[in-house]
Amino acid sequence: MSSVQKTQDFLEVLKSRRSVRYYDSSVKISREEMTQMLEEATLAPSSVNMQPWRFVVIESPEAKAQLLPLAKFNGNQVETSAAVVAVFGDLNFTDYAEEIFAKAVSLGYMPEDVKNQQLAAYLPLFDAMPLEMKRDSVLIDAGLVSMQFMLVARAHGYDTNPIGGYEKEQVAEAFGMDPKRHVPIMLISIGKAAKEGHSSARLDIARTTEWR
Amino acid sequence: MSSVQKTQDFLEVLKSRRSVRYYDSSVKISREEMTQMLEEATLAPSSVNMQPWRFVVIESPEAKAQLLPLAKFNGNQVETSAAVVAVFGDLNFTDYAEEIFAKAVSLGYMPEDVKNQQLAAYLPLFDAMPLEMKRDSVLIDAGLVSMQFMLVARAHGYDTNPIGGYEKEQVAEAFGMDPKRHVPIMLISIGKAAKEGHSSARLDIARTTEWR
Repeated sequence: MSSVQKTQDFLEVLKSRRSVRYYDSSVKISREEMTQMLEEATLAPSSVNMQPWRFVVIESPEAKAQLLPLAKFNGNQVETSAAVVAVFGDLNFTDYAEEIFAKAVSLGYMPEDVKNQQLAAYLPLFDAMPLEMKRDSVLIDAGLVSMQFMLVARAHGYDTNPIGGYEKEQVAEAFGMDPKRHVPIMLISIGKAAKEGHSSARLDIARTTEWR
Repeated sequence: MSSVQKTQDFLEVLKSRRSVRYYDSSVKISREEMTQMLEEATLAPSSVNMQPWRFVVIESPEAKAQLLPLAKFNGNQVETSAAVVAVFGDLNFTDYAEEIFAKAVSLGYMPEDVKNQQLAAYLPLFDAMPLEMKRDSVLIDAGLVSMQFMLVARAHGYDTNPIGGYEKEQVAEAFGMDPKRHVPIMLISIGKAAKEGHSSARLDIARTTEWR
């Protein structure tokens, strides 16, 4: 498996992404390539660029064995994938605000005074925000990055399966996350398909969309 | 603006997507092309393929005038974009389950007996699901489709801005949605950039990721 990404047609990537449950268990993904995929995925936007997404890449046989009983309806994906990426949304995302904005300044994307004005404007807003509103926001942002990660994986020649059916709190705890702080979003299994995914139907746009 | 989509390099689409706040207000998007973009966006996966996303495409001057005071910190996007797509998550998504699964059967993706087994297994689970869990699920799924829509828009040559700062309940009500049923997710302005978006910094993967 080469980590060099060839030109990939956008629509082909989109259309060939399907949920895959059985992987070629001999295929591993290097940390370099996984890091590259996460870098590409995290180009996703987020509310005030706070990037509240956190990832645990579960790749060792020991960690997968730990995960297996906590995702027992999705055991094939855990056992045969190259890795399972557990996605979380961090309710304490403001802890990273100074670092993110300082990086933007150091890269020349933002003047220092704009950084200071923006932090002074946004941090009190976030501090005053009700927990449910914060939670909504990190769930949405983590959804954005999860989608982008699945597409990036496909562009790298891998297949994925987004998994919602697992013991969310227990998985958080098993991998050292605090479920009160780190909202469990989904597991994404990733690897090379051994069995193709099924086609699935979509509602007509007329059923989901109003025009005003 | 042609609605024919040329080959677009996946990574180029990803890297050129930036939040754009000022659009060329002379550029409109046809309903055919918007429908095509929504069709491509809704190839996104969702929990049990329930597709809980709903869209209101706000494109007429009258509808935009109605939206403007409800998104006053993002007035430039509302005023200059070709359209603003309001994304909602439908808590009554099981109302569409029979239709989705019947479509899969009619397309030959699923045998009738599998459809019946799956609906019999899943519908009681969804009925018994606590509201918070359902809400989490539609927020995540609506995040997935929102990301895919922004990338699709870029591949069609348009720019977008995901907007979280607006009067969510009031926008729902103004456009005939029930905020108790239709969870407001975000507004996505779409059009042709008149001013380029800014670059923005991202956290190093080492800051967001654990390896197990």
